This record gives sequence, structure tokens and C-alpha cells, in this order.
Amino acid sequence: MEEISQLIASDLQSLEQSIEKLLTTRVSFIKEVVHHIVKSGGKRIRPILVILAARLCGCQDERHVPYAAIVEFIHTATLLHDDVVDNARTRRGTLTANTIWGNEPSVLVGDFLFSKSFDLMVADGIPDVSGVISKATTALAEGEILELVKTSDVETTEADYAEIIANKTAVLLSAACEIGAILGCVDTEKRTALREFGYHVGMAFQLTDDMLDYIASDTTLGKHTGTDLREGKITLPLIHALKQASDEEKNFVSGLLEKPRITKKDFEQVKKTIEAHDGMGYTLRRSVEHIEKAKRQLEVFSPSDYKTALLNLADYIVSRRM
Amino acid sequence: MEEISQLIASDLQSLEQSIEKLLTTRVSFIKEVVHHIVKSGGKRIRPILVILAARLCGCQDERHVPYAAIVEFIHTATLLHDDVVDNARTRRGTLTANTIWGNEPSVLVGDFLFSKSFDLMVADGIPDVSGVISKATTALAEGEILELVKTSDVETTEADYAEIIANKTAVLLSAACEIGAILGCVDTEKRTALREFGYHVGMAFQLTDDMLDYIASDTTLGKHTGTDLREGKITLPLIHALKQASDEEKNFVSGLLEKPRITKKDFEQVKKTIEAHDGMGYTLRRSVEHIEKAKRQLEVFSPSDYKTALLNLADYIVSRRM
Repeated sequence: MEEISQLIASDLQSLEQSIEKLLTTRVSFIKEVVHHIVKSGGKRIRPILVILAARLCGCQDERHVPYAAIVEFIHTATLLHDDVVDNARTRRGTLTANTIWGNEPSVLVGDFLFSKSFDLMVADGIPDVSGVISKATTALAEGEILELVKTSDVETTEADYAEIIANKTAVLLSAACEIGAILGCVDTEKRTALREFGYHVGMAFQLTDDMLDYIASDTTLGKHTGTDLREGKITLPLIHALKQASDEEKNFVSGLLEKPRITKKDFEQVKKTIEAHDGMGYTLRRSVEHIEKAKRQLEVFSPSDYKTALLNLADYIVSRRM
Repeated sequence: MEEISQLIASDLQSLEQSIEKLLTTRVSFIKEVVHHIVKSGGKRIRPILVILAARLCGCQDERHVPYAAIVEFIHTATLLHDDVVDNARTRRGTLTANTIWGNEPSVLVGDFLFSKSFDLMVADGIPDVSGVISKATTALAEGEILELVKTSDVETTEADYAEIIANKTAVLLSAACEIGAILGCVDTEKRTALREFGYHVGMAFQLTDDMLDYIASDTTLGKHTGTDLREGKITLPLIHALKQASDEEKNFVSGLLEKPRITKKDFEQVKKTIEAHDGMGYTLRRSVEHIEKAKRQLEVFSPSDYKTALLNLADYIVSRRM
């Protein structure tokens, strides 16, 4: 990631200025809330994808930077709303906006960021870009709602799970890459390649996130492990394990999901079930498969520093520990 | 309202079909939540404004109907989020979505409706319309946040209040009328006239709503009076009264706003203060002024049934009892 940051250092600097500049509002409190979350050390994966894709496709000026900012605004809006939905107290080790100010500002500032993003896009007037983004945010909401519907449902299948993470995560990363392609005015083949690249990177990103929720230490991830299970989110490591688990193991997990509180001991027991049935190994293999598919998409591009950076970013996604 | 419904009966029927048709989603639960709120007997003021404005401007076919549906989707999204923000148990006498399903689906289905609305607009490809709507939803979020910032603030001025209601209510009614004008391809003068008409009708609409919260009976409004005060919303009847109130009266209201629960007796006391300082009369006069301004805007249009309907709708706004 360090090398990538150096390669696009100037764009990343413009990005921070753009975030500041585009966040115009008559209400200073909105800025306060957005700053809290935008500045809390996110990895900026989505804007970095916009920038690298645009540069790979030959964008010479900086017109992709405001779009990178817009994609980060949309991501920020979803974080604000997610934290309300999940009743999350902290994110990346920092108190969430809903913990500090309550649910109300989180809902409304999220709405502001969504609307502002559309307003900025419409004003810029590239219908293709607006279409990609509005389709992505619609899918995003559907993915989150699907996840909600499947909460604590031990019958959740791998296909259900794939549909949830494709919509809630992969489509926005896919959109980020496709926007770069649109701004770079490349042909349909390259645009499709970048869209697919983003999709597979997004799938691997979420698969890795869901694995880390079982194995990361509190200090590296900036969050407690077991959060997903406590929120009733049944992710692939557990889905795969349950498919082969004994009735006893299944009943234990079902019972757990009905309990108001999951203890550390309960969680360790679930981890044992996952390990016994290769839940982590299976998830890691799916994740690696997606990364391989992602990387293959870039074969249509000639070698360049930006191509190398995207390939490295893909590898980073599965190897990261936070 | 009965006459207006007859005049545009065919459009209103198409509207209901359009709402159904445009609400495509892979997630059936979304439809369930949206149906609950869309079908719960709203007055459809915003789509009616789109339809009447479009017809007044000479729209012959039905291409304005999907836009009327989109404006109702956006309104529905704000209702879903408002009910979370206000922690409302009922709306128009029906349980709110957040009461039935919890805050999570309300937040996410609201997000879905916002995104879907933008997606439908972008796909239809009239940049002017998308611009008007995205500006309106941005202002809407700002208005709601301003209101939140001013919660329980007895120092709220009439100017603060005007800014809040202009953004949270008037801009969307204004946008509804302006969309009709854009679709009718009228000149700038007429487009501006309809935008201003919608704005003033919107201001009067909210002023009337805020008065009704002090005087409506539970049965007609389908909600309990005093809701605003209990939520710490300081509206014009009280703002005006406080400007002339004695220190004793002011202290009583300040003290009240810090109490966890406002009793019926407290509320009656506040109403007395409002009556003593002509808070209702003053608000009614402001509301009537806006309606007069709204109606004057329509002078640029030749007489027609649609013009008459808009003028009657404006009068209905201030005279309604629910």
C-alpha cells in the first residue's frame, strides 16, 4: 500500500482537498460529523480504485479526483447508516458518530452525503457515471436489507451469502473501477474488464473481512473479533462449517444465535466448529479465487505502473491483517 | 381535493400503477415495508403537484406520471428516516415502519428508495429534472439537520425556523412543481413561477402543520397534538409567543423542554402562553401570506381547469384540518 500511495501521491493529496472543497453546506454541524468519520483513518480503498483505474486508462488531468471523493462520500454515508443499523459503538477503534451524537445525525448526515453525491454528479453531467453509481447504491441498499432479512438464520446458504456480499460490498468497488474506465474513455472490453476486476476484488475484500472477524486480534483490526456473530451475521466460515457440522454442533450454533449475549467461551466453541470443518481454509480459497479472477481481467491492459499497482492492491486485499 | 382528484383521475390511477411498476427489487421485504407506508393513506400532495403542474404546462401524454411516483418515493424515504429520527410510534394513526420492524429496515429501505429514485431519473435522462431533485434532497437533509441542531433551543428565531421549514418541506414541493414545468417545456418565466408557487405552498403547508400540532383533535389529524413540543421542536406559534412572553412564561417553557416528559397540563399551559401572545394568529397570517404569494405566481398562466385546481389546492393547504 505504501508504494501505491507514493505512485498516486499527488492525486491522493488532491483527493483530500476535493473532499474538503465539495463538502459545501450551510450547516457546520454536518461538516463536524463527516470530518469525524472521513478523517478516522479509513483505507480509502474505493477512491484509490477510482484513481488507479482512471490513470491506467490514460486520464492525464485530475478530473477523476472529484469522483474519487464522491465515491468516498457514498461509502461514508453507508458507514454512518450501517453503524445505526448495527448499533455499533466503535469503528476502527474510534467511537462511532451514533455513539457520540446519537442515531439522528447519523441517519440525516448519511442522507445529506448521498444527496450531495448525486447533486455533484448530476452537475458534472456524465450520465454513464451517474448511472453506474445510482445502480451501485441501489444494490448496496438491497444487499444490506438482504443481510438483515438473513440475520441469525442458520439456514443461510453460500449462495445467499454471495448475493449479500456482492451487493453490499462488491458493487461499489466495481463501480469505483468502472468510473475510472468511463473517465478514461476506454473501449467496452476494457471498461468491462475493470468493472469485473473491481467486483472480484470487492468479493475477496468482504470474504477477508469476514475471516478477520474470526481471527484478527483487537489491536490490529481496531475492532473486537466476533462482532459479526454477535450481530447475527452468518458469514462464509460458519456457513461452510455448518454444512458439514454434526447435529450437536448445529444445535449449539442455533441456540447461541437466540441468546441475548454471546460469551467469549461460546465464541471459542464456534471457532472450534469452524476449524473442525475447514471453514477458514474454504473461505480463504474462495477469496484467493476471486483475486486470481480479478487479476486475469487486467490482461487486456499493457504493462504500466498503474497496472502493477492494481495487481498489488488485489494481492494486498487477501493478505491484509486489518 | 375531491374535485382535483376527479380532474386528474386517470393520472392518479396511472400513478398507483407506476408506483407498483417502478418498485422493482430482488428483495420482497422491501416491497412489504414500502407498501405499508405508501399505502397508509397519504395525501399524495407532492405527486399531485407534479401532475397538475405538468398538465398546466401542456403535457399531453403521461410521461410526468413516473416522475410523480419518484417524488412520492423520495417523500416516503424521508418519512421512513424521519420516524427513526423522531422515534415516532405512529403516523396518520397507523403504526410506523420502525415500530413494526425496528429502525434497521426503516433506515435501509429509505436508502433503497432514495437510490432507486436517482437510478430511475438517471435512466430517463433529463439532467434538469435530476438536478432539481438532487438539489431538493440535499436541502431536505440540511433542513432536517438544522432542525435537529435547534432542538429544544428556546432561542430559535423566526429566521431559523423559516430556514428549517423552507429546506425540510418547501423545497420538495417546489421541486415537484418545477419538474412539471420542465416536462411541459415552458419558458423560464413560467418555470420560475411554478417553482415559486411550490415553494410558497410548501411554506404554508408546514406552517399549517405546525399550527395543527397545537390545535387538531386526535381523531382528525391521526396523531396526538403536542408531538412537536414533546420532540423539542420549537415552531412558529411558540417562537412568536416567546418573543413577547414574560420572563416567567419563558422560564416555564425552558424548564419544560428539559423535562423528560411533558404532561397534558404542561401542554395546556404552553397553549395558553401561545394564545396570550397571538402565536396562532400570527402563524396563520404568515401562512395566508405565503398562499397569496403562491397564487399570484400563477398569473402568468392563462385560465384552465389545471390552473383553477392549483389555486384551489393552495387554498386547501391553509384551510385543511388534517
